[in-house]
Amino acid sequence: LIAQDHDAQLIALDWGTTSLRAYLLGESGTTLEERSLPLGVMRLHAEIEKSTAGVSEVFERAFQQGCGDWAESMASVPIVAAGMVGSANGWREAPYLSVPFDLAHLGAKLTQVRTARGNLIHIVPGLLQNIGLANVMRGEETQVLGALTACALLKCERDFLFGLPGTHSKWVYVSGRHIRHFETFMTGEVYAALCAHTILGRGMRYGSQPDPLAFDRGVQVAGSAAGKAGILSTIFSVRTLGIMGVLFPEGQPDYLSGLLIGYEVDSISRLRSEQVLPAKMLPEAIVLVGEDSLCARYLRALKLHGYEDVQIVANAAQRGLWEVALQAGLVLSKQVPPARKTEGPFPC
Amino acid sequence: LIAQDHDAQLIALDWGTTSLRAYLLGESGTTLEERSLPLGVMRLHAEIEKSTAGVSEVFERAFQQGCGDWAESMASVPIVAAGMVGSANGWREAPYLSVPFDLAHLGAKLTQVRTARGNLIHIVPGLLQNIGLANVMRGEETQVLGALTACALLKCERDFLFGLPGTHSKWVYVSGRHIRHFETFMTGEVYAALCAHTILGRGMRYGSQPDPLAFDRGVQVAGSAAGKAGILSTIFSVRTLGIMGVLFPEGQPDYLSGLLIGYEVDSISRLRSEQVLPAKMLPEAIVLVGEDSLCARYLRALKLHGYEDVQIVANAAQRGLWEVALQAGLVLSKQVPPARKTEGPFPC
Repeated sequence: LIAQDHDAQLIALDWGTTSLRAYLLGESGTTLEERSLPLGVMRLHAEIEKSTAGVSEVFERAFQQGCGDWAESMASVPIVAAGMVGSANGWREAPYLSVPFDLAHLGAKLTQVRTARGNLIHIVPGLLQNIGLANVMRGEETQVLGALTACALLKCERDFLFGLPGTHSKWVYVSGRHIRHFETFMTGEVYAALCAHTILGRGMRYGSQPDPLAFDRGVQVAGSAAGKAGILSTIFSVRTLGIMGVLFPEGQPDYLSGLLIGYEVDSISRLRSEQVLPAKMLPEAIVLVGEDSLCARYLRALKLHGYEDVQIVANAAQRGLWEVALQAGLVLSKQVPPARKTEGPFPC
Repeated sequence: LIAQDHDAQLIALDWGTTSLRAYLLGESGTTLEERSLPLGVMRLHAEIEKSTAGVSEVFERAFQQGCGDWAESMASVPIVAAGMVGSANGWREAPYLSVPFDLAHLGAKLTQVRTARGNLIHIVPGLLQNIGLANVMRGEETQVLGALTACALLKCERDFLFGLPGTHSKWVYVSGRHIRHFETFMTGEVYAALCAHTILGRGMRYGSQPDPLAFDRGVQVAGSAAGKAGILSTIFSVRTLGIMGVLFPEGQPDYLSGLLIGYEVDSISRLRSEQVLPAKMLPEAIVLVGEDSLCARYLRALKLHGYEDVQIVANAAQRGLWEVALQAGLVLSKQVPPARKTEGPFPC
């Protein structure tokens, strides 16, 4: 069942490393329909390297599979895409913008690619932080913009810290609509590699339920005196606590997850105390953005590290893509109340 | 060309996770012949799980392949084995001994398994440290004993720190012939998993030569202010420094190697300052034991962290296995000078 042409305002694509999420958005950015396909840039890039098909051909096919029906039946509806689709390994490179960056200007920096059938796709650029060890993001800038919009914080001058857990977690320092600084943690990808490709995975069994106590134990070890030996050392305890019968095979995956997320949260506290990330914030100024069950894990780990008032924002990608389209004049604004009242838990 | 029966005194097996190293030792433990086969316990265990063959059958076959000719033609020569062959996934479990442990007693604690052809194999037990996060070793206890013998340090009461780099590095605190404490770092295995199974490997190219400057850069980042963000964060710089053109594809493997080994060395310094590992040692009391090129990497990283007088000991496994056989009365001692003079760089 396809939404009516006159309802649809925007085709919004969150096109990352592992998946293509397509949203059909209506008036004021409300979601009419959404889809998720395992057609991430990593897989498409691998396909291009293996086959004789060119970049355009492979991305075109994925696009048609994801939302070709929308693009054809609603030819006048604009299309905006964010994420790795704009990387050097993506469909068309959207050059990085530099940090600090004013998120109000994101919509003015789009890169275009036209499909074989004539649809124009507007690609959001990523951000580059060329200070110390360089850092890059693609897609998260759009999610942060979406989260700021959702919380009606676009005009707030206070410091905020956005945590975006995932394959590569990002922690983003925002104030006055600017992304000031960000950090990357490869926690999700390292977790997957350790489980699938080291001895730690051999003793693991995946239960039907998560094991929150094993997770908490991992978080606590990361923050303990023993944790100071560092990840390379303490991850071995997945195995030794298994040998000792302290950790059952079903608890080992969540113990390792807690250990790694615990180290990430510990690093955030350290970077705050060294004022690389904002040190003086209101307690409720830490905002998690991302997939529900993953945010729940981070919320739990943050609580164990003393962060009690963390907020979670949902659907940040759609909201961000809508906001980018608004900035670019691709859709029209309607005066609607923000998703949450300004007098809520947020202080602006 | 097989050594003469009357020369051979001991068949010594260093049978670990990834390989089976077999040594035919003569009088005073001199090496007559040596072999290395990719018949490690991990591979044999996987074979057992996949096939209908039993544990004995698979290990027997590997043993015959490795040194069946020696065992048959020199039936009276005793056989000693150390390493994962004595683990729960090995041929016969040799129960762990507890730390602290007097290495003079290792030969009194052997576990026997008899081959189908009637040869008796004496398996050296591993060590268990059940304090804090539990820790285990198998094979390294024998190498440490070998290194102590090689350096004529068996009677020395001073503190020593033995570093045994490998798939799982061990750092072992020894004094007065006792193993007092040890730590494990999964550095080698994590490095392999990151290169082969994460995005970090995608930009890498393996040059014909190692890149020592890229290695040093990694070591320095681990010890720098930026390094405090932790491994999960800084490993991402393999990619970002690549994007920035600072790190060429050929330099990326060694940069990552330096980064991980740098963190390991950094942890050793921290554990020493917290007196978990010996804090007050003579500078030359850090001894590396292991494969040449890997020891060279650690030597380099240790130098960059201010450790100038680190020693390297070779052939520790053979020497340790010989010493265990002496302790067990399986071979006879002959009064021979130790490999190095007691008035050399070592202080005992």
